[in-house]
Amino acid sequence: MNSKRRALVSTTSSRSAVDVTDLISELLEGQSGPVHVSVPHTTCALILSEVDDELLSDYERLSSELLAPFEPFSHIRNDVPNASAHILSAMFGTAIVVFAESGVIDLGRYQRIVLLELDGPKDRTITILPLTAQESSGAH
Amino acid sequence: MNSKRRALVSTTSSRSAVDVTDLISELLEGQSGPVHVSVPHTTCALILSEVDDELLSDYERLSSELLAPFEPFSHIRNDVPNASAHILSAMFGTAIVVFAESGVIDLGRYQRIVLLELDGPKDRTITILPLTAQESSGAH
Amino acid sequence: MNSKRRALVSTTSSRSAVDVTDLISELLEGQSGPVHVSVPHTTCALILSEVDDELLSDYERLSSELLAPFEPFSHIRNDVPNASAHILSAMFGTAIVVFAESGVIDLGRYQRIVLLELDGPKDRTITILPLTAQESSGAH
Repeated sequence: MNSKRRALVSTTSSRSAVDVTDLISELLEGQSGPVHVSVPHTTCALILSEVDDELLSDYERLSSELLAPFEPFSHIRNDVPNASAHILSAMFGTAIVVFAESGVIDLGRYQRIVLLELDGPKDRTITILPLTAQESSGAH
Repeated sequence: MNSKRRALVSTTSSRSAVDVTDLISELLEGQSGPVHVSVPHTTCALILSEVDDELLSDYERLSSELLAPFEPFSHIRNDVPNASAHILSAMFGTAIVVFAESGVIDLGRYQRIVLLELDGPKDRTITILPLTAQESSGAH
Repeated sequence: MNSKRRALVSTTSSRSAVDVTDLISELLEGQSGPVHVSVPHTTCALILSEVDDELLSDYERLSSELLAPFEPFSHIRNDVPNASAHILSAMFGTAIVVFAESGVIDLGRYQRIVLLELDGPKDRTITILPLTAQESSGAH
């Protein structure tokens, strides 16, 4: 009973912050319990944050500027010098745990789930997996 | 059987680092197993760290200074320009997983649980939720 | 039935990034399910990252340089001024959750598990603990 589920997000620019909360809620399909939500990538991140247009643009700008003073880095696989994206991905992290109740995610008043694209545009996968064994509904 | 528990911490300054390990231990009330500890906020963080007065003050100063060169940011909801607090909250993270054994948290020798206030003073909630189904003691 | 397992890694320099994926896979010994992998330390980190020699050296250099402009910090326990290592440990984080299937870790195409030494050389412990109750194989 593998209950891994996936959603796809196509980002449209080099750095972008995208609210993916509703997308993840749809994936839950009524599930309850703790759920691990992650991106199986190394140049993007998944965070909890407030969301408004200004703050999303602030994440984008900061992601471009924070490590710029330390460039160039030596990692240039396939001629792509994206070490800053890798390092920021590790700093922000690529996974969170949320608790769902009948498919509704229990978040704080200002918390939303945000995908931080750090090396786009790219097609990104979001994976959700329950952290506890899922009981089959109605089986008892 | 919702076993969500909460504690409140009132922070007293704009940036502060507060050892909340004992507070969380009290909340556990003898529980065992993996526990998700989080703050349902977007301008504070919850981390594992060594604790002494000097290090806590270092967190406070660094939190004020790390993103200062990139200010001003554009996020100013309710006339509060606190984008740096949001971004640092996402970088440090707002949740950890700890393992408890009869209410005692299994931490490394120097590890303590620290609440990082990044936009205080404010009243903050700490939430703990077990990651595995809790057996009712004595029911079998 | 405590199924906590440990591996030891001896780091060889002040800052280093070490691929520990295979070491952790060996610890799993065929387990399935979500597993919490952590370092019970406060001056190193555990991250998911792509791995090549260039990127590992980039992590090492960035770890030395990112907080250097803010030094000196006030934390100097035992005459060791390692506050930068503590702060970076909290920023990168000391734990991840991975999913195993018969001992094979389900990672993204470029994801590896990397120990970031921020205050070495030191002997470091990696701890793994299952997040769900482990069924005893063959007992039913």
